[in-house]
Amino acid sequence: MNEFELIRDYFARQPVTRADVVVGIGDDAAVLELPVDRQLVVSTDMLVAGVHFPQETAPAAVGYKALAVNLSDLAAMGASPAWFTLNLSLPAADPVWLRAFCAGLFDLAGAFGLQLVGGDTTRGPLTIGIQIAGFVPHGQALLRSGARPGDGIYVTGWLGDAALGLMCLREQLRLPESDRAQVLQRLERPTPRVHEGEALRGLASACIDISDGLVADLGHVLEASGVGAQVELATLPLSAVYQAVRGQVGWNPAVARGDDYELCFTVPAQRQPALEALAAQFDCAIRRIGVIEARPGLRLVEPSGAAFRPDIPGFDHFRGP
Amino acid sequence: MNEFELIRDYFARQPVTRADVVVGIGDDAAVLELPVDRQLVVSTDMLVAGVHFPQETAPAAVGYKALAVNLSDLAAMGASPAWFTLNLSLPAADPVWLRAFCAGLFDLAGAFGLQLVGGDTTRGPLTIGIQIAGFVPHGQALLRSGARPGDGIYVTGWLGDAALGLMCLREQLRLPESDRAQVLQRLERPTPRVHEGEALRGLASACIDISDGLVADLGHVLEASGVGAQVELATLPLSAVYQAVRGQVGWNPAVARGDDYELCFTVPAQRQPALEALAAQFDCAIRRIGVIEARPGLRLVEPSGAAFRPDIPGFDHFRGP
Repeated sequence: MNEFELIRDYFARQPVTRADVVVGIGDDAAVLELPVDRQLVVSTDMLVAGVHFPQETAPAAVGYKALAVNLSDLAAMGASPAWFTLNLSLPAADPVWLRAFCAGLFDLAGAFGLQLVGGDTTRGPLTIGIQIAGFVPHGQALLRSGARPGDGIYVTGWLGDAALGLMCLREQLRLPESDRAQVLQRLERPTPRVHEGEALRGLASACIDISDGLVADLGHVLEASGVGAQVELATLPLSAVYQAVRGQVGWNPAVARGDDYELCFTVPAQRQPALEALAAQFDCAIRRIGVIEARPGLRLVEPSGAAFRPDIPGFDHFRGP
Repeated sequence: MNEFELIRDYFARQPVTRADVVVGIGDDAAVLELPVDRQLVVSTDMLVAGVHFPQETAPAAVGYKALAVNLSDLAAMGASPAWFTLNLSLPAADPVWLRAFCAGLFDLAGAFGLQLVGGDTTRGPLTIGIQIAGFVPHGQALLRSGARPGDGIYVTGWLGDAALGLMCLREQLRLPESDRAQVLQRLERPTPRVHEGEALRGLASACIDISDGLVADLGHVLEASGVGAQVELATLPLSAVYQAVRGQVGWNPAVARGDDYELCFTVPAQRQPALEALAAQFDCAIRRIGVIEARPGLRLVEPSGAAFRPDIPGFDHFRGP
């Protein structure tokens, strides 16, 4: 078996077989059956070793996270995942590395019923590009532009643990072993909030996933919606691990660092009872952290009532388009 | 204007605005309107500097070719192009490089009515991943698996000029200046045979694009279809430039090297008159080069009647899934 066959063999052993995949991997392109009365939602993200994750990251974590960040984008649109394609550039066709990478990738794909329908594998610096597609009912995608003054601002799950994980890896923070394991898990295996995103259709007025930090990502919502916001730091959902070191690390890991992959969304006042009823079914907690205001800008308020100025580090990688 | 805004600004200035793009670049994902009675055709390809093109390749040629190889995959399915996404890893956000890259990319996108609907740009080794989507009428995609004994084998355009271009760059071949320019153009700016692919729907029994060379790619058709073939080398479409050096370079550049991005397809005997009628409207010539046979294997026959054994170099990059 040559390298080509080896790689094809690993990727052929995926867990999901969808009825709408007419032609999957193996021809020049995939042929896919389209649903009626749905819109297609498409996103893509690229991870580069040494930029988005340390070179020595376990391959299963790389495979998992490469798909998780894409699933998180679909979640932020309220879309239901369907298919993905993979571009993989690898320094060498190492079977041990590939097996573990596929295990992490397909673990998550299986959990969300996602089928790999195409890809390209090539020799080169370790780089993973994934493009993901899903569906929303007509006109129900959650956009960044729908937040209005008076809407409550909410986040799912916990903020800042991923940043603490990165601080542990960089030896800027020491934690007890089990706490360290918890924040590293949050850094390396974030849970994309797909079910929560789907449930927020028709309920949230705007939504985004927190990949670059609350300040940056809520900032995108405010800019797209032409509004401002006030956020009370005392209401941020912080894990027990975070709370134990808050005096040492401050608020920045929770508001000004990335990689949490939680959803940040806004809900008009009249729909807040419906949100509370729904939240009971979610896999994670939902926390109200502030309110949308007409006055532009994001105001972060400390428990003392003082204004908090986040320390936003320069982006270490540029993003676009 | 920071790097982020600079990049976003370049990519926002694209030539195509499709009515089916409800949300394009700028949210967490694109939202796309789906046509009725069509299947979606999706493909992806990745180009790595130093592997797929020399590091010093002009950025406009890189942008053009990254999209051309993807369009060629859609052409091989008979699909009509609609949208694409771009993952771009760049060593630095160099405005001069980016402007030229976008010019090459959007030049081709504009020619085929393709809209860029999303992407991710990051710092890293120069790598371009494109994912492309288009449509075919229900059940009309051209697959690799439909070739049957007796079907004629055809190719579009010219074979081998791209390989001669690469030989020029590697100083393995010297050509007069205008001939050199012609083969470099074929290497750097291949014309994806999109209109020809669309016209072949309902006519071709199998189709593939020639990215890795005729022997390798026709081989994929034979394998997928469970058949063999005989190809007459005397009938290969060779440009005047190629014919002038055939005594020196032999048949291998035309049959055993890649990067031509022509279509290779098969047509049953009863549809060959319809093909000939249609071929008059094509932008490029169509040449019959052989016939599908029941006996497995690919037999290449020299003008003397002797069997020709191609010299297939080891793949310098592995491919899959």
